[in-house]
Amino acid sequence: MDTIERLTSLFQRFPGIGPRQAQRFVQFLLRSSPSVRKELVEAVQSLGASVKQCPQCMRFSSGGGKTCSMCSNPERNSKLLAVVATDADIAAMERGGSYRGSYFVLGGTISLASEKTNNLRTKQLLDSLPARIKAGLQEIILAFPANPEGDATAIQVREKLMEIVSPSLVITALGRGLSTGSELEYADPETIKSALDSRR
Amino acid sequence: MDTIERLTSLFQRFPGIGPRQAQRFVQFLLRSSPSVRKELVEAVQSLGASVKQCPQCMRFSSGGGKTCSMCSNPERNSKLLAVVATDADIAAMERGGSYRGSYFVLGGTISLASEKTNNLRTKQLLDSLPARIKAGLQEIILAFPANPEGDATAIQVREKLMEIVSPSLVITALGRGLSTGSELEYADPETIKSALDSRR
Amino acid sequence: MDTIERLTSLFQRFPGIGPRQAQRFVQFLLRSSPSVRKELVEAVQSLGASVKQCPQCMRFSSGGGKTCSMCSNPERNSKLLAVVATDADIAAMERGGSYRGSYFVLGGTISLASEKTNNLRTKQLLDSLPARIKAGLQEIILAFPANPEGDATAIQVREKLMEIVSPSLVITALGRGLSTGSELEYADPETIKSALDSRR
Amino acid sequence: MDTIERLTSLFQRFPGIGPRQAQRFVQFLLRSSPSVRKELVEAVQSLGASVKQCPQCMRFSSGGGKTCSMCSNPERNSKLLAVVATDADIAAMERGGSYRGSYFVLGGTISLASEKTNNLRTKQLLDSLPARIKAGLQEIILAFPANPEGDATAIQVREKLMEIVSPSLVITALGRGLSTGSELEYADPETIKSALDSRR
Repeated sequence: MDTIERLTSLFQRFPGIGPRQAQRFVQFLLRSSPSVRKELVEAVQSLGASVKQCPQCMRFSSGGGKTCSMCSNPERNSKLLAVVATDADIAAMERGGSYRGSYFVLGGTISLASEKTNNLRTKQLLDSLPARIKAGLQEIILAFPANPEGDATAIQVREKLMEIVSPSLVITALGRGLSTGSELEYADPETIKSALDSRR
Repeated sequence: MDTIERLTSLFQRFPGIGPRQAQRFVQFLLRSSPSVRKELVEAVQSLGASVKQCPQCMRFSSGGGKTCSMCSNPERNSKLLAVVATDADIAAMERGGSYRGSYFVLGGTISLASEKTNNLRTKQLLDSLPARIKAGLQEIILAFPANPEGDATAIQVREKLMEIVSPSLVITALGRGLSTGSELEYADPETIKSALDSRR
Repeated sequence: MDTIERLTSLFQRFPGIGPRQAQRFVQFLLRSSPSVRKELVEAVQSLGASVKQCPQCMRFSSGGGKTCSMCSNPERNSKLLAVVATDADIAAMERGGSYRGSYFVLGGTISLASEKTNNLRTKQLLDSLPARIKAGLQEIILAFPANPEGDATAIQVREKLMEIVSPSLVITALGRGLSTGSELEYADPETIKSALDSRR
Repeated sequence: MDTIERLTSLFQRFPGIGPRQAQRFVQFLLRSSPSVRKELVEAVQSLGASVKQCPQCMRFSSGGGKTCSMCSNPERNSKLLAVVATDADIAAMERGGSYRGSYFVLGGTISLASEKTNNLRTKQLLDSLPARIKAGLQEIILAFPANPEGDATAIQVREKLMEIVSPSLVITALGRGLSTGSELEYADPETIKSALDSRR
């Protein structure tokens, strides 16, 4: 396999990238100046070197400290802990703009199609709770996607949490309902039902 | 203008129908048997004759009684009144399956683009309240679309209701949050914010 | 079944219309003035009365003559005959703007999924040829869709034509190739092959 | 800017990649094993080293010879030369399966929006012709996209070719018409016109 084919097949492993777009990426790099390719090489190389997983929230970030910039930020509210599936969900929560608590990245959701457990970090979450409770934790927000995988994950995590958490700790989940911009007329029955249940 | 063109231009006035599909409708009717066309003619004719607007909820329905089959159904819960924009929203709420209260069709939402008031039936809603309260009404649910028009309508209707309703009457709105099937990662900031606010 | 449901189910038989849009059509007619409904009723009624199928090209049109306005137009070129699947294809050919010959509507294409013959008017086409040849016909253009059904229809019609037509009559088919606006990169292999075969 | 942000912004320069997908690429690489990142780094590095532009057809390929594997393949037909805009168009032509001639990559099309000339390799094409004609070239096929940019490019290239080519050299262009799978009814007027012009 020559270099072009090898790089094409590597790009095909990227999420959401098929053979055509992988080819286009290679053509783009071929037409780019050597300095662009060099920048890319260096950035990928330094991912392994400078980026590490925060031992507290498990998200990836580059930064010198023992924990990531969010976990070590004293202005983040340690009473709230949002458990999310992926790093990208943290970005989504931050775009929401109103959440100022801390996070824990579970590493995915339960896969209903396969029997894989997806290596969720439920144990790490549980192990981290005593220290968090000591630091003032009052509420764990299960912030999983509103789909069957997210729901199954929420059920499993909630059960595990129930076994050990103190009664003073509240476990909540993100609200379901009409998403911004949606019309009643096109909403699915489940969403209508949730919107009614969560009316206020 | 010949018959084909005339019927084509009539179908173009139907919601969501452009010239091509209007032509296809006419071709469909041309290829259909005379009995299909006759059925259509009779059904449209009887719309005017047998369908009437229910004087209580304002939705259109055919049926002999003074009020529609829902309004006259003693098993519907008269403690709850959902105010919706259109007849189609009643259908959506019913698909949800969990609502058993009564309805009032406002007739649309405030149009933010134009200055039209859209002839909303706010006055009829207000006029109907004393009788509804006497019949046990405890909660009015504003069930408008989750968009700026729906929000503006909710604000206006809520204000009008505030002026006259008794303190025992609760005014709620459908919950906002993640709609069923949606992923955090792709949710807009407003929806994330709502989902956090309505967590439970 | 009440009137609203009956009309909704009638509209669901219209091409491309599902239950939701059928409901919207009914709501549209309910909100329309009685005069709009009356216009619709009259237009549908007069379809049966004033529209007839032209005995020469088989398309539907309203008009007093023995044949339709196209077939009786002396300025249309009688040397060319385009055989199309449907009335809508005549409209598409006319939008093209360059064709000034005559038409014959076959009434559909061979269905490859079912075993239905679709009642194609191949026999009527063949029967009409002697008179057309006498009137100067020199070329029959098979103008079917560029899909397997259209191709199968072209093969069958061509075979039937071959059996009887005079050697002076040319049988052609619409050209295949890149459609306007398309890029090579995204074109399917068949289209690329056709575009190469029909290069000039 | 930290490493994650830097790599994200590099991926955003890739064709068709927005901020969200760029983030997803970075997360993918973070979750991947070091060996995957190493493979990517090596493949990108060897692009610059082992891939070169063929001096004859101007496409990028890796391979030891003076010209690329296609140009040096004695089984490719040297009577035919397809002039294409990009390397990806060669891949499309090859998927077509029926072309066995040689190629020349012009490097893009004329940009109608901007005044950029896009550095097309028209001069290189012209310079290569004497040798190609000596080797038996009989036909140059302009294989540009079927859009205004492609058409403008074809006009310009054809003019330049006309000035110098021998009368024995035929200049053709890919055929236009119905693309495979398309229906007459939805075809645009230009395509219908081309399909009629190229009927056969």
